[in-house]
Amino acid sequence: MEQYFVKEKIDSDEFKITDTENYQHIIKVLRHKIGDKIFLVDNTQSLFAATIKEVDSDNKAFLVETKKQTLKTTELPLNVTIACSLSKKDKVEWITQKATELGATRIVFFNSKYAIMHWKSNVVEKKLSRLQEIAKNAAQQSKRRVIPEVSYLNKLTDLVDIKAATNLVAYEESAKQGEISLLAQTLNENPESILCAFGPEGGFAPDEVEFLNDHDFLSVGLGPRIMRAETAPMYFLSVLSYKYELTVK
Amino acid sequence: MEQYFVKEKIDSDEFKITDTENYQHIIKVLRHKIGDKIFLVDNTQSLFAATIKEVDSDNKAFLVETKKQTLKTTELPLNVTIACSLSKKDKVEWITQKATELGATRIVFFNSKYAIMHWKSNVVEKKLSRLQEIAKNAAQQSKRRVIPEVSYLNKLTDLVDIKAATNLVAYEESAKQGEISLLAQTLNENPESILCAFGPEGGFAPDEVEFLNDHDFLSVGLGPRIMRAETAPMYFLSVLSYKYELTVK
Repeated sequence: MEQYFVKEKIDSDEFKITDTENYQHIIKVLRHKIGDKIFLVDNTQSLFAATIKEVDSDNKAFLVETKKQTLKTTELPLNVTIACSLSKKDKVEWITQKATELGATRIVFFNSKYAIMHWKSNVVEKKLSRLQEIAKNAAQQSKRRVIPEVSYLNKLTDLVDIKAATNLVAYEESAKQGEISLLAQTLNENPESILCAFGPEGGFAPDEVEFLNDHDFLSVGLGPRIMRAETAPMYFLSVLSYKYELTVK
Repeated sequence: MEQYFVKEKIDSDEFKITDTENYQHIIKVLRHKIGDKIFLVDNTQSLFAATIKEVDSDNKAFLVETKKQTLKTTELPLNVTIACSLSKKDKVEWITQKATELGATRIVFFNSKYAIMHWKSNVVEKKLSRLQEIAKNAAQQSKRRVIPEVSYLNKLTDLVDIKAATNLVAYEESAKQGEISLLAQTLNENPESILCAFGPEGGFAPDEVEFLNDHDFLSVGLGPRIMRAETAPMYFLSVLSYKYELTVK
């Protein structure tokens, strides 16, 4: 059954969906009729089964009968921020989609020295709006309760302003030097929230890593193989899910 | 430094590269000259630093001086087969590239009931040859010692012929029913080799899962979020790397 997000809190047995985008997609594109069922997630992350009762095509709205569901949340038990250096359009979009499926709470793109792409200030808003839409669709498809927030930092040094309880930087050189256990050690400490920064294809500049290390970002290796820039964040998120959602206590 | 595979065993200080594809790429496209260094992996998974000594453009070959390297292998400590239901061309290619980066030993595509793509028998060879090329390039880029073998099974039931020591099937319904620890339990048993089957976007048919279960494929959930068909194998491979390459003993 499809799931959609609504921006309001659902607090009665009936709810009117006035978001024209939802109307357009659910009623016009998918041609759902009275009696059809969908899932809704409201702004408190609550999940409802919703049966379509009335369609108001003049106002592009529809009324549903709602029933709160008690299914366990699908969110990771900690806030996770993935901070990735800018790369090509399709990679940035891909990272957004996959990081959403894999449970990221926040997805940040940032400028760095060896990044092959740079966003001019006048395109940032449009780019983010497109990525936010991708995140919403992926969150709906993967049955998340939260749409990750997608944002942009003009400078790598701005990462210090959005730090989590625990901050990491995925660093290939760490892996090359045979560092194999810092990530596991860190995760064993059960951080309340975690941020991991990922470099561009060309890697971080040494002074960028030094800056991050100086600001309490721990360099961690992600295994012996060289991963592409877009693969490393997926590895990281998969590991968090395994560690905190699947590992026998 | 770039890495390339050679089909022969390198057993002296000099080695003549006669593979025209390597010649074309290294000498013609990248314009490497005498004195330039590359890495070579031979058919015994040994790694060599190789310095170009002579270029024989008549025969499209070149001679290198080799020095065996003692770097630790970049291969996972167990054989891992990823078996994925067929999907669209770009997804199949993407799975091949990413599964290679993440360390799979073998990548198998198979036909299943709800798969949205089917390969006619006359295209299989061409498709596999293209995917094998993608795997080779990804293996070189990620500094693997092995190129994963890409193959195709015309029927899901043929999976029983390629079983590993431990066999799994990623099953969404397991995840929905709150199964959260079978994967971790299985990995704790340190299997010698492992195969995991992944369904198409539409999922496995119930009788397909039943068939696999009857043939000792254990159904495992991969967490509470619904992942796209191409994301699940990446999750699985990342987890194996974390468990066997990064976790503190």
